[in-house]
Amino acid sequence: MTRAEQIPADDPTCQALGIRTVPGAPGPAVLQMRVTGEMVNRHGIVHGGYLFLLADAAFAHASNAPGPTAVAQSAQITFLRPVLAGVTLWAEATERVRHGRFGVYDVTVRLADGTVVAEFRGHSVVLTGPGSLPTSSNGHLDGGSDGP
Amino acid sequence: MTRAEQIPADDPTCQALGIRTVPGAPGPAVLQMRVTGEMVNRHGIVHGGYLFLLADAAFAHASNAPGPTAVAQSAQITFLRPVLAGVTLWAEATERVRHGRFGVYDVTVRLADGTVVAEFRGHSVVLTGPGSLPTSSNGHLDGGSDGP
Amino acid sequence: MTRAEQIPADDPTCQALGIRTVPGAPGPAVLQMRVTGEMVNRHGIVHGGYLFLLADAAFAHASNAPGPTAVAQSAQITFLRPVLAGVTLWAEATERVRHGRFGVYDVTVRLADGTVVAEFRGHSVVLTGPGSLPTSSNGHLDGGSDGP
Amino acid sequence: MTRAEQIPADDPTCQALGIRTVPGAPGPAVLQMRVTGEMVNRHGIVHGGYLFLLADAAFAHASNAPGPTAVAQSAQITFLRPVLAGVTLWAEATERVRHGRFGVYDVTVRLADGTVVAEFRGHSVVLTGPGSLPTSSNGHLDGGSDGP
Repeated sequence: MTRAEQIPADDPTCQALGIRTVPGAPGPAVLQMRVTGEMVNRHGIVHGGYLFLLADAAFAHASNAPGPTAVAQSAQITFLRPVLAGVTLWAEATERVRHGRFGVYDVTVRLADGTVVAEFRGHSVVLTGPGSLPTSSNGHLDGGSDGP
Repeated sequence: MTRAEQIPADDPTCQALGIRTVPGAPGPAVLQMRVTGEMVNRHGIVHGGYLFLLADAAFAHASNAPGPTAVAQSAQITFLRPVLAGVTLWAEATERVRHGRFGVYDVTVRLADGTVVAEFRGHSVVLTGPGSLPTSSNGHLDGGSDGP
Repeated sequence: MTRAEQIPADDPTCQALGIRTVPGAPGPAVLQMRVTGEMVNRHGIVHGGYLFLLADAAFAHASNAPGPTAVAQSAQITFLRPVLAGVTLWAEATERVRHGRFGVYDVTVRLADGTVVAEFRGHSVVLTGPGSLPTSSNGHLDGGSDGP
Repeated sequence: MTRAEQIPADDPTCQALGIRTVPGAPGPAVLQMRVTGEMVNRHGIVHGGYLFLLADAAFAHASNAPGPTAVAQSAQITFLRPVLAGVTLWAEATERVRHGRFGVYDVTVRLADGTVVAEFRGHSVVLTGPGSLPTSSNGHLDGGSDGP
């Protein structure tokens, strides 16, 4: 890893999976991850869940870039090509539109040669209130009457 | 783990993450996973990518149950409640409809007390041809002119 | 039309298209519509937009049934079989989950013989505030900082 | 309507609704439609189904532009702002990615002043075989074992 590359220090998932920002990329919304042999499914190809996870991480970076805490409300992903273990994937997120508390973000996941392997669209909502997520007793956080 | 619980032996991702079938569940399309501190994002809640991954694994089990190899073409997930590390998640997949090579599957992700934390809908396609995925030279598999 | 069938009187679109509730159906969330020759696209099959519209109308009925005004935030539809003009379509909406102001609803669109032609999933949000939608000067209503 | 504006002559839905291509627009994938009082729902705003229909028509134009017959497999729409009757809507479709028989297209629906009211993503598949859709006896067309 070069000096410019950074693993987001505040994100345990990115730490554990080696997801890092890309040196020289236009912004923090370009992430890369090397897929390992542990990320493979029964068909011998990379589990779609990891493609989603990488795209979702880029989406989180982009939707939180403006400042206020934003969380994912929903997302959709299209798998275009199967991926083999050992390659490095790149995910680039762009804001499509924002209105009020809501935002729509597009993420493209590519191989190093630029081949598109997945397209992702995420919907975010900015949290209102004290800025921290309240915890409920049964193991999940609760946004209260305001939803997600 | 009781004798009846099984980690799908042919799925490295399920092995690595401890995703296992549920003893006494009606079928292999009910999976469970304990979320760890490494699965948390910058907001201190479980990364949506892991909720997706668990749902996607249940979807894969359900869509491959009929026999022929089926792969995910696309999927959509809605996050209803944030989840804290330490809990065990349950994902239950049901077939909604199949037509020709295409199938639509719904997966609900719940906490142990039944609280719904995410709803997932996946679209699968059965692969045609020799039954194994061809490998391309640039690190991804290719389904040929037939698409995903 | 029998006495029990009803075209929703407060919905100009349903009036114009002849979308009506189904006599004897378990609730107002089952709608039917006869597709006409004007609803056909360049391929000679019913335009997917009309399948969506019928499903969306059933979704609106179901999501508003609890009382407070709910509007559609997003929706996804899968087209399983092309449809010919002249047939009557049935759309049945069911609530999948509600949490706070947000709801997820599934709608299945069928031919009279039960054949599924489309599957729809809609996301609704209950409006807060004075109960009526404010009008903006440039020809659209605006939910204010609260979004859709 | 100026000389350059054209209602797609081979599309009965576009004829009936007055959906037309835009003079001077970069291609046939920019469509416009004036929303009428008959397109309003119970809330007094334009029915989401008509926003979808317009976007879907633009998607159809874009996905069929390369030549071979392409049909919609699935689509997702996000409603950002409610729309009032009387305005003219513009839908612009762009190809995001194509691979084999499959394509992903994005459509943005705007008011005349450029305000985005909806974002749409469609998935298309090119039909194989003789080029015409076979008709089944129960009122729907059937793509055979190949699905939609």
